Amino acid sequence: MITSSANPKVKQVVQWQTKARERRSAGVFLTEGFKMFEEAPEELIREVYVSESAAGKAGSREMLSNKLEKVGYETVTDELFVKMSDTQTPQGILCVMRQPQYSLKQMLQTKAPLLVVLENLQDPGNLGTIMRTGEGAGITGVIMSRQTVDIFNPKVIRATMGSIFRLPFLYVDSLEEAIREMHDNGIHTYAAHLEGKKYYDSFSFREGTAFLIGNEGNGLRRETAELAGDYLKIPMEGKVESLNAAIAASLLMYEAHRQRNSVGMD
Amino acid sequence: MITSSANPKVKQVVQWQTKARERRSAGVFLTEGFKMFEEAPEELIREVYVSESAAGKAGSREMLSNKLEKVGYETVTDELFVKMSDTQTPQGILCVMRQPQYSLKQMLQTKAPLLVVLENLQDPGNLGTIMRTGEGAGITGVIMSRQTVDIFNPKVIRATMGSIFRLPFLYVDSLEEAIREMHDNGIHTYAAHLEGKKYYDSFSFREGTAFLIGNEGNGLRRETAELAGDYLKIPMEGKVESLNAAIAASLLMYEAHRQRNSVGMD
Repeated sequence: MITSSANPKVKQVVQWQTKARERRSAGVFLTEGFKMFEEAPEELIREVYVSESAAGKAGSREMLSNKLEKVGYETVTDELFVKMSDTQTPQGILCVMRQPQYSLKQMLQTKAPLLVVLENLQDPGNLGTIMRTGEGAGITGVIMSRQTVDIFNPKVIRATMGSIFRLPFLYVDSLEEAIREMHDNGIHTYAAHLEGKKYYDSFSFREGTAFLIGNEGNGLRRETAELAGDYLKIPMEGKVESLNAAIAASLLMYEAHRQRNSVGMD
Repeated sequence: MITSSANPKVKQVVQWQTKARERRSAGVFLTEGFKMFEEAPEELIREVYVSESAAGKAGSREMLSNKLEKVGYETVTDELFVKMSDTQTPQGILCVMRQPQYSLKQMLQTKAPLLVVLENLQDPGNLGTIMRTGEGAGITGVIMSRQTVDIFNPKVIRATMGSIFRLPFLYVDSLEEAIREMHDNGIHTYAAHLEGKKYYDSFSFREGTAFLIGNEGNGLRRETAELAGDYLKIPMEGKVESLNAAIAASLLMYEAHRQRNSVGMD
């Protein structure tokens, strides 16, 4: 059992909790909680830390203890676990995961891709929620500009509710290039935009589709919006000028889901 | 100009920023920022505080300075304003607003009400986002259980983006009674529920409609869900077990909007 906060593994985990650069150079991210551990693909698990009292609880749940035995784990004192954890009331299990790698090529070559492209999104909750809702709506991937919030930020990971393990995602240096590649692959791109003249439910999203979503405060950069194949509008009553980025993305993704799953004409 | 943090008005504002009970007993809430000030109905404004440097800026914008002159305001030093503010980079304008009062009767007697009923929602961002998206979707009111997060919490206010001024809302002691009154008034109630057999877009929401949305972790209490006229299901692909409460509410509200604004049959 690890008992000292001077333990190099413990110090390393604490660094990974707070420093995106450290996570990136090591190619890892952290997840916490039993549900995340259960859902974590074994091939991505590098290290597991369990608090003393959580180890007792886990022992009584067969699925959990089997997986723990299989992947291996280290026990730490409850006191130390609190220091390693990013949450206020830690469940007592923390995994160091390998960052999965996806390619744009892969994402573009699935049948009728349904992609979300995020430009400079800053709110961790929004990104996590888009991942979670995106998996629910059956999208095939999320593509982000480099200035988008770090998807391996613990707040994002929590908000994904496990979708981080299943939904492909990718940071690209140039959204412009990525959008051009989409067009070359027959994917239609749509920007949610105030200048849109047609409502979002009047387009067909049954073929390859990508929705471009901009930063919370500023929306899409003009240069990016101009690359879009079409502008679309989400109707807004009252004096509402815009919707939250995760809400706008969710309405679009679920409209695509509705169309792709409805029988016959729409 | 107010310069001392011992000033009783300043001390009072600081209390109102953090204490729901103090806000409630005074019947007030606080808003910050120029946009919120512009959108604030004059009849609800009780006091306005402007930082020294913001007063200079406001003077050059006619609409702002006219409204400020009309409702009256007090200047405070920049240093003091930071103490009064709830935000990290305050814009320098803060309003003490009177809490608006709405009645269930009013809400039930509009034509074809479109209501959202929230049971014990805890996340301020979720409540604010539901208000903002709700106004956008044209809903007619939000009804909340007493254990729902305080709508006058500064984080909720910010996330509403001004919808707090325009969309009727109400806390009720008994959701059960409120739901029964809805039924008596011909309003159909729907619970988003895993046991739902029909998808949300297969119901008609053109008549009086209320969507019941439960707590983030636990969903609706069984007793409340059982009162609903129908269960509905939001389709979820992959391994997603539930959606964020604000996302689920938004999909339902916008589906109702789509139906109510589409021409002819749907």
